[in-house]
Parts: sequence; C-alpha cells; structure tokens
Amino acid sequence: MPSEFEIIRKFFTRPAPGAVLGVGDDAALLRATPGMELAFATDMLLEGRHFRAGAEPRSVGHKALAVNLSDMAAMGARPRWATLAIALPAADEAWIAAFAAGLFGLAERFGTELVGGDTTRGPLAICIAILGEVPAGRALLRSGARAGDEVWVSGHLGGAALALAQPGNAAAARRLDLPEPRVALGERLRGLASAAIDISDGFAQDLGHILESSGCGARVHYERLPKDPALAESGDVALERRCVLGGGDDYELAFTAPPAARSALEALARELALPLARVGEIRAGESRLEVLDAAGRTIAAPGGFDHFAA
Amino acid sequence: MPSEFEIIRKFFTRPAPGAVLGVGDDAALLRATPGMELAFATDMLLEGRHFRAGAEPRSVGHKALAVNLSDMAAMGARPRWATLAIALPAADEAWIAAFAAGLFGLAERFGTELVGGDTTRGPLAICIAILGEVPAGRALLRSGARAGDEVWVSGHLGGAALALAQPGNAAAARRLDLPEPRVALGERLRGLASAAIDISDGFAQDLGHILESSGCGARVHYERLPKDPALAESGDVALERRCVLGGGDDYELAFTAPPAARSALEALARELALPLARVGEIRAGESRLEVLDAAGRTIAAPGGFDHFAA
Repeated sequence: MPSEFEIIRKFFTRPAPGAVLGVGDDAALLRATPGMELAFATDMLLEGRHFRAGAEPRSVGHKALAVNLSDMAAMGARPRWATLAIALPAADEAWIAAFAAGLFGLAERFGTELVGGDTTRGPLAICIAILGEVPAGRALLRSGARAGDEVWVSGHLGGAALALAQPGNAAAARRLDLPEPRVALGERLRGLASAAIDISDGFAQDLGHILESSGCGARVHYERLPKDPALAESGDVALERRCVLGGGDDYELAFTAPPAARSALEALARELALPLARVGEIRAGESRLEVLDAAGRTIAAPGGFDHFAA
Repeated sequence: MPSEFEIIRKFFTRPAPGAVLGVGDDAALLRATPGMELAFATDMLLEGRHFRAGAEPRSVGHKALAVNLSDMAAMGARPRWATLAIALPAADEAWIAAFAAGLFGLAERFGTELVGGDTTRGPLAICIAILGEVPAGRALLRSGARAGDEVWVSGHLGGAALALAQPGNAAAARRLDLPEPRVALGERLRGLASAAIDISDGFAQDLGHILESSGCGARVHYERLPKDPALAESGDVALERRCVLGGGDDYELAFTAPPAARSALEALARELALPLARVGEIRAGESRLEVLDAAGRTIAAPGGFDHFAA
C-alpha cells in the first residue's frame, strides 16, 4: 500500500510553472500579478451528501474542482492556484488515479495549478481552496444590483436536481456529476454585469442572496427561465418547478445587468456559444423575489438547499 | 435549529479590515502587499484521527488553525487570511460557539483574518486554507540545508505523543490539544536559517524531509534533543525515545543554520523566551539521519506518522 507521501508524489504532484514553489514544502509560494486582487474561496465535498456513495471517481475529482472554479466565475476572477485536502478511506490506487484524472483534466482546461494539499485517512471528504485573480476593483459582487437592472441566467437550470429525483436519467446525471464552471463567462461579465452569483443552492435562493446583498427585489418570469432539456421529457410540472427554481448544483451563473448591456450580452452569448436568458427585472424595495407564471400569477418559490434543514 | 447561513452569520463572520472583501460573497477579495510572495497551505482535521472524538470544541477550533499557522511559521511567512470549511454532524450552537472562540482567539493573536468558508453537514471535519506573506525570495524552504550547517529545534519534543500514550497526563494533553504555532520564530528565522519545517509527523521524519529536499544527511545527538518535561516523569526510556523522535503534533520548528548564526539564534531564543536547542549537524552524502546516544551509539530512529500505515 502506498504511503501518504507516495500518494502525493505519484498522483498529486504536477509541474506548476505559474507558481514560485508548488507541492512539496510546508506551503506553496506564489507571486500575485501587480494590479490584481486575489479571489480566495473554498468548498468541501462529502460522499453521500455532495456526490453519491460509490460515484465514479473521475467525476468526483471533476466536481470537487468545478464547484471551486464556479466560485471564481461568480466573482469574474481568473482561477490560478488551488490546494487539495483529501480524506480517503483507503489508499486505493485505481480510485485515486481516476480522481486525479478528473481533477487535473479540468484544472488544465482552466489553467489552474494544484500547488499544495493534505492527504489523510478517513471517510471520503474533499476540500479544495482556490485562488484567482481579478483586476482591482472590478470583481463581480453580489451587492451591485440596482433597480432597473435585468436578471440573466446562463445555460439551463434544473438538470442536476432532476438527476437526484430520477437517478436513472443519464442526461441529467451528467449535469449533476460533471458540472461545467462558467469561468470564461464570468471573466467576460466584468464591466457588463452589476452583480453575479453561481447557482449552487438553487436559482431562487441564490438570486435571493443578490437581492439581500444589494437591498432590492426582483420579478422573474417563470416561462423565460431556461429549463434543462431533460426536464421537458418529464411532463411533471411540479417537479419541473422544483428543479428549476429550487434545484442546486447546476453551477450556472445568475447575474444582473443594466438594460444598456443587453446587446453586448446577446453578442457574448453567441461568441461563447452559451445561452444567456433574460428572465426578469430588479425592483426597488424589500429583498423579495417574485416569480410569475405565464398568466402573471405569483408562483411561490420553493426554498433552496440548506445543509442543516435537510 | 439555525440554518447554514445563520451559522455563518452568527459564528463565523467577523470584521476583516485587512481584506478588500471578507465573508459573504462567492469568494473573498484580497490585495497582496507589493514585494511579498504569498505562502498558501491547507490542512484537514478529522474527528477521531487528528483530535479525540468528543474533544473540547474550543481546543478543536484552536488546533485546526494552529496547524495551518504552523505551516506559515515553517515558511517564515506572516499569516494573513484563512478560509474555513467545516462539516458538522448537527447545528449544535454551544459546540459551534466554543469552536469559534478557540479559532478566533488564536486568529486574533496572530493577526489572521477569516475571510470565507463553507459549512455543511457530515461527520465532523475541519479544513482550513491559509495565506501568508513573506518577502520575495526570503521564504524558509526545506531545500536549503548545506553540509556544515547545524540542526536546531524549538521548544520541547514529545509532549503531544505522550498525551496519546497516557491519556490521563494533563500537562501532555495541553501540548496535544493546544499547540502553539511558532509564527514569531519563523519570521525571525528569515536570513538566519538555511532550511525549516514544522514537526507535525515526528522529528525524525520531518527532519528527514529537509534532508531529502536538500540532498544531504544529518547526525543528531539524542541527549541534546529538548524533551518535554512531562516525559521526564515517565521514567520509560523506550516511550521517551518513541515520543521525542517519532511523535508528531508538537508543532515545534526544526531548522538548520550555518554555525555563524549561532550567537544570533541564542539571542533570539532569549528575546522570544523560547528555548532553541542545537542538536546536531548537517553532513554531506546521502539523505540519512543518524541519531547517536550519549555514548556515541546509533539509535534506530522510529518512523514518523503515515496516515495510510496507521
């Protein structure tokens, strides 16, 4: 059985040319780019909570990094460096190799370097911390939405939640297991969007965080929300609403932008080949989200995900 | 029962005047000091492995940050910002409040700001990522030891390991539960020490990492190693050797320095009121640690801690 140090050497040590010093000392050493601010975030994934017990290790590695990259996207930051702390129930080399392939596959696509970490034994748990860079003063915050701005959503909503409701649905499972962080979109939204968040806990709840931080309300038109194609086949309206409004784990971006940005956003959607849907408006007043159906009736928005209410 | 967001707001949100943006968005925003490099590290602590099941939550909070501060100390970096990812089995407010008191108590002493994190439900696990700053090119690495340098150790060794061997030993328990990261020492060692590491896995193993990275050997004199006072009372020679050479969790610094630094290090020890013991020499040749007893006989050094061999 490989030791802790052999595991790190064999599976988690890759060149990190963008770092002064990568894996192998008490800490990595990095040089921040002058004029940039650092965006710093962390997310922990537990087996049985954030991914299925027995999930394919490649997708676990992918998702563990994807959720952190998604935080960078939501700030408009370019991801640069990450650390990985992992508790493994056993030193199963095949599992670790597949996990590392999933993680590094995504890391390389986004130019993110693994520069350090911690390996221990215990119930499967993965904690990644990530550092990105964003030009000073230009990060996308939750607090910048203003009355009159429009509400936008990238991609499609509800696929990941559908996968939880229908474990046999392969298209939906892909959304849950292999989320695509919207990093390029986040970077391009700097200067266009007034506020942004990634949808990890559900559209209604996550947009709610923008409303709370910005001190304003929103009206969203349910029929304009981009629904995952897999949902159309279900024919179950209540399920669809639950997945689209309350389903987490899609890792799309919800953002707000003034109407003047509309054509630039439409052009950006074409350029990135990523649908951007204009789904509602920011309104003055209390931090309340109103979701209307096609007939203009209010739909009660289900809450999003709260780890301690589950 | 408080929600995830209430827990974060109530227990883990403190002012972070050294950050551009602290807790409450998708990532924290930080501005690195010009001329400094960033030191970036992470450590994960699991109940039953890194601390006793049912351990006093204040000491769990202290230790979770202490082990990360210790990584900064080992690099000669000044700790600045940290994120906390925590899996909690339940939203037990008294437990969380005591945990936060232990964590923030230490954070404030060392000027370290908690700027973000992630709260989820699961078997108790704590993962902190930390960022420090060190003047560019001046970090303490594991790779800088050279033949002729002397080997030094701060404080006392073996107390934490004794606590594991003798659960009733209160003095030793303090070493295990409330380690004191040697941050001030680490910063002052810049320009004096040629290499450094913190002792988390055991003196022999951790010094071994310096030898491996530096491509040299070392001879250490067992009688010069600073032994925890609680060990003297045990009268068990084999236990003492096991704790002093192989015991982890002391979080003292082991470092090397040229003989010319000797008087500066002795003065530093007095100034910091922290014993610094000169315990051996770095030698040319293979990365081997030889430990001699008072009669000059070789003592077989026990291995340190490997999470996958345990």
